[in-house]
Amino acid sequence: MAVQPASSDGQHRVVIVGAGFGGLFAARRLSGAPVQVTVVDRTTHHLFQPLLYQVATGILSEGHVAPTTREVLRRQRNARVVLGEVVDVDLDARTVTSRVLDQETLLGYDSLIVATGSSQSYFGHDEFAVHAPGLKSIDDALEVRGRILGAFEMAEIETDPQRREAWLTFALIGAGPTGVEMAGQIAELSRQSLCGEYRNFDPAQARILLVDGAPRILPAFDEALSQRAAEHLRGMGVEIQTGAMVVGVDADGIEIQDGDGQRRRVAAMTKVWSAGVQASGLGRLLAEHSGAELARHGQVQVMPDCTLPGHPEVFVVGDLMALDGLPGLAEVAMQSGLHAASEIRHRLDGDTTPRRFAYRDLGTLAAISRYYAIGERGRVHLWGLPGWLIWLAVHLVFLTGFKSRVGALFYWTASFFGRLRYERTITLQQVLARRALETAPQSAPHMDAPPA
Amino acid sequence: MAVQPASSDGQHRVVIVGAGFGGLFAARRLSGAPVQVTVVDRTTHHLFQPLLYQVATGILSEGHVAPTTREVLRRQRNARVVLGEVVDVDLDARTVTSRVLDQETLLGYDSLIVATGSSQSYFGHDEFAVHAPGLKSIDDALEVRGRILGAFEMAEIETDPQRREAWLTFALIGAGPTGVEMAGQIAELSRQSLCGEYRNFDPAQARILLVDGAPRILPAFDEALSQRAAEHLRGMGVEIQTGAMVVGVDADGIEIQDGDGQRRRVAAMTKVWSAGVQASGLGRLLAEHSGAELARHGQVQVMPDCTLPGHPEVFVVGDLMALDGLPGLAEVAMQSGLHAASEIRHRLDGDTTPRRFAYRDLGTLAAISRYYAIGERGRVHLWGLPGWLIWLAVHLVFLTGFKSRVGALFYWTASFFGRLRYERTITLQQVLARRALETAPQSAPHMDAPPA
Repeated sequence: MAVQPASSDGQHRVVIVGAGFGGLFAARRLSGAPVQVTVVDRTTHHLFQPLLYQVATGILSEGHVAPTTREVLRRQRNARVVLGEVVDVDLDARTVTSRVLDQETLLGYDSLIVATGSSQSYFGHDEFAVHAPGLKSIDDALEVRGRILGAFEMAEIETDPQRREAWLTFALIGAGPTGVEMAGQIAELSRQSLCGEYRNFDPAQARILLVDGAPRILPAFDEALSQRAAEHLRGMGVEIQTGAMVVGVDADGIEIQDGDGQRRRVAAMTKVWSAGVQASGLGRLLAEHSGAELARHGQVQVMPDCTLPGHPEVFVVGDLMALDGLPGLAEVAMQSGLHAASEIRHRLDGDTTPRRFAYRDLGTLAAISRYYAIGERGRVHLWGLPGWLIWLAVHLVFLTGFKSRVGALFYWTASFFGRLRYERTITLQQVLARRALETAPQSAPHMDAPPA
Repeated sequence: MAVQPASSDGQHRVVIVGAGFGGLFAARRLSGAPVQVTVVDRTTHHLFQPLLYQVATGILSEGHVAPTTREVLRRQRNARVVLGEVVDVDLDARTVTSRVLDQETLLGYDSLIVATGSSQSYFGHDEFAVHAPGLKSIDDALEVRGRILGAFEMAEIETDPQRREAWLTFALIGAGPTGVEMAGQIAELSRQSLCGEYRNFDPAQARILLVDGAPRILPAFDEALSQRAAEHLRGMGVEIQTGAMVVGVDADGIEIQDGDGQRRRVAAMTKVWSAGVQASGLGRLLAEHSGAELARHGQVQVMPDCTLPGHPEVFVVGDLMALDGLPGLAEVAMQSGLHAASEIRHRLDGDTTPRRFAYRDLGTLAAISRYYAIGERGRVHLWGLPGWLIWLAVHLVFLTGFKSRVGALFYWTASFFGRLRYERTITLQQVLARRALETAPQSAPHMDAPPA
C-alpha cells in the first residue's frame, strides 16, 4: 500500500471524500485557508447531476456536465485531487484508505468531510437495475442514451407490430424531477428531433409512460404547480399514471399495480428508474465505526453542525447526511459542504463553538420542456416561459466552470432553436455491456455500483 | 427471421453495407435516382475517422465525428438506414442477412455495394490488442481517452518512481498519420493542457515514444516533408524510434527489436497501436462465394470498375477493395463509393459499358500539432502554418453535416486558442471493461470486433 505523506509543513489536513456538490463546494470554500485539502473520488470528474438527463437524451456531451475535478481545482494551490474509491475509514487512527485498480492509498486527516452522496434504490429489487437503469452517473446517462436511441433503431427493423410497439414504449418509473424531465425530453425527441428519420413508423407514435405510486407528480412542489406540469406533459403526449406501483420489471416490460390492487402488464423495452435513492455505502461503515444512527435511506444521522456524533472532526454532508429531514437536493449538498468548510475555518481561527447548519431554501425548479419550467420559492410560483428563463439563468450560473457554461450555452442554442441534438452516438461497448448484463443478471454489477 | 419486403413499386434496390466514407458517399450520389437505397451498418453512426484522434485526446466529443447515419440521410427520401451487422451474403439469391441482438433482417438487392472498411491488424499477435488498442471506432477512441487521462491520474497516486515513470510513458506503435497525430496531441496535452493540474509530478515530464519498423515516419509523404514533421515532433518532445519493430506488448510495457537485432524493453502503461490494418471479414466471405482473390491485408481484388469478378451487380469499395495498389485513405473510399453509385446510375440509364475507376489524387495532409501540418499534392509541398490552415479548411468542408462543422469549429476555437480540452470524461464502464479484458485476455473480444 502506498502511504501518502502527511502534510510536510504540519498544516491541518482536510480530506474530502466525494467530488459532487457537497465535496467540491467544501473544497472551494477552503481556498486560501492554511490547510492542505485532498479531494478523493472514484471518478475523475465532478458531476453536474441536474443536467444529466440532457446527456441521456443527446443534448449535452459528457464534458459539459462532468468537468474533471482536477481542472476545476487547478488554480487552488492548497488542494490536490486523488482518484480512488474509499474502502475504509479509521476514525481512531484518522485515516482513509482509497483504492483504484490494485493501487491503495492511505490518507491521514485532521478533518474529514464525507460527501459520497446516494445511488438509485430499487426497494429490495436490485434485479430490476439491469432492465431499468437509474440516472446517477455518466455511465448511466450514456447507457440510457444508448437504450433510448437504440430502441428507435430496433423499431425500424422490427416487423412484428406488437414488438415494434414495445420498442416504442418508454416507461419512466418515478415522477420526481428526473422522471419528469426525462418524459419531457423523450417527448421532444420523438415528436421533434427524430421527425422524418424513420421509414417504417412515425417516431411521434412513441408511447411515454410516467408512473409513480404517489398521488401526483413532482410531490416536492406545490399542488397547483404540480398540476400545471402534469397538464403540460399531457399536452406533449406523455401518459401520466400516478397512484400506480411498479411491482415487476423485466427485459420486455413492467408490471403495474394500480390503487385498486389490480395488476397489469405494459410491454416496454426501455425503462428508466428514478423512484428511490439510497445513501452511499460509506454511511453504513461510518455508522458501524461511530455508533451513529442511520435514517431510512441509509443516510447518517448527524449533529446539528453536520458532524458525526462523538467525532467533531468528521463532517457528513449532502445526500449522505440525515438532518432535520432535509431533502437530497444539490442545494442542500452545496450549503452543507460550505458549512463544513466554514466550521473548519472557524476552528482554525480558534473559535471552537459549533454552529448549527441552517439551510436556506432558495427555491426549486424543474424543466418540463423547451420554454416550459415550473419554479417555487416560498409563496412565489412560476411556470411556463418565465419559469424556463429562470431555470436557464440559474443553470448557467451554477454550471461548474466557465468552459462548461459556454459549451452548454452553445449546445442549448442549437437544441432549443434548432431542435438539434448533437450527441446521439451509441457505442458498441454499450451494446456489449448491456448484453453481458442481461444474460448474466445475477453476477453482473450494476454500472452504478463501485468496481469492487 | 424478419424479411424486409422487396421494393413495393418494383424499383431497383441498392443495398449498401457500411456507412463509412465509401458507403455514405455512394448513398448520397444515388439521391434522386429511381432506386431504393438501404444502408446497413453495425453502428448507428457515420464515422469521420480522420478526426478520431481528437476524440481520443479530449478535444472533440463523439457527436462531432460520429453523426448518426440516419440524420445525415434524413432528407434523402429514397434512402433508409438499417442497424445490423451483415453476417451473410448470398450472391445467387442476391440477399444480405444482417443481425442485431437476436433480430435478423434479410435484405434483397439488385445492386450491392460492400464498404465495410478495415480494422486494426496485429500481424498475428491478437493478444496485443488488449494492451494496445487501435483507433478505428468511437469505442476505441473513448477507451484510449480513458487510458491516456487515467495514466496521469495513476501517476499522481503512484509513489514508486519507476512505476510512475511507466504511467507517464506513452508508446505509439506505428508512425503513420494516426500515430503521428496522437504523438503530437499527447505532447500538447502533457506540455500545455494539463499544466498545473498535478501536485506530485510535472505532466510535461511525460515520455512520448513513436515507434515504427520503417526507416522514417509518415512514409506516404515525400521524404523532405517527413523529415520536417519529425523535426517538429522532436521539438515538441516526442522521441522517434524508426527502424524499430515492436515484438512484444503486455500490460506494463513493450519489447522493441532494433535494426541490429537487439531487443530491449520499455516500461509503458499506455500503448496505442496503429501499425497495420486488415480488411473487414466480409471480404473473405465474398471471396469464398465468388472465387475472387484476396490481397495481402484481406482486401478483395476487384475488376477495374470496382465490381466483384463475375458479379457486375456487386461493388466493393474503400478499404475493403484491392485495386491498382490504391492506399486505404478516406479519399479513395469516397471516390470509389461515388464511382459505384455512378455506375449504377449509368446502367439504369441503359448504358451498361463498365467504366474503370480512375482515382484522382487530391493530395494528403497530416496535422502534427496546433498550427503545424504537412501537406503534399503532386509536387506542391506545404508545411507549418500554411499547411495547418489548409488542413483546417479541408476538414471543415469535409466534416459530415453542418451541425458537426459548427460544433467542431466551436470546440477547435476553445482548443487552439485557449488550449482547453472539453471532453476529458472517463467512465467507470471503461475501467470495468478494461479490467475484464486484462484479466481474461483469451476469451475477451477486442472492442473493435463485431459483437458475435
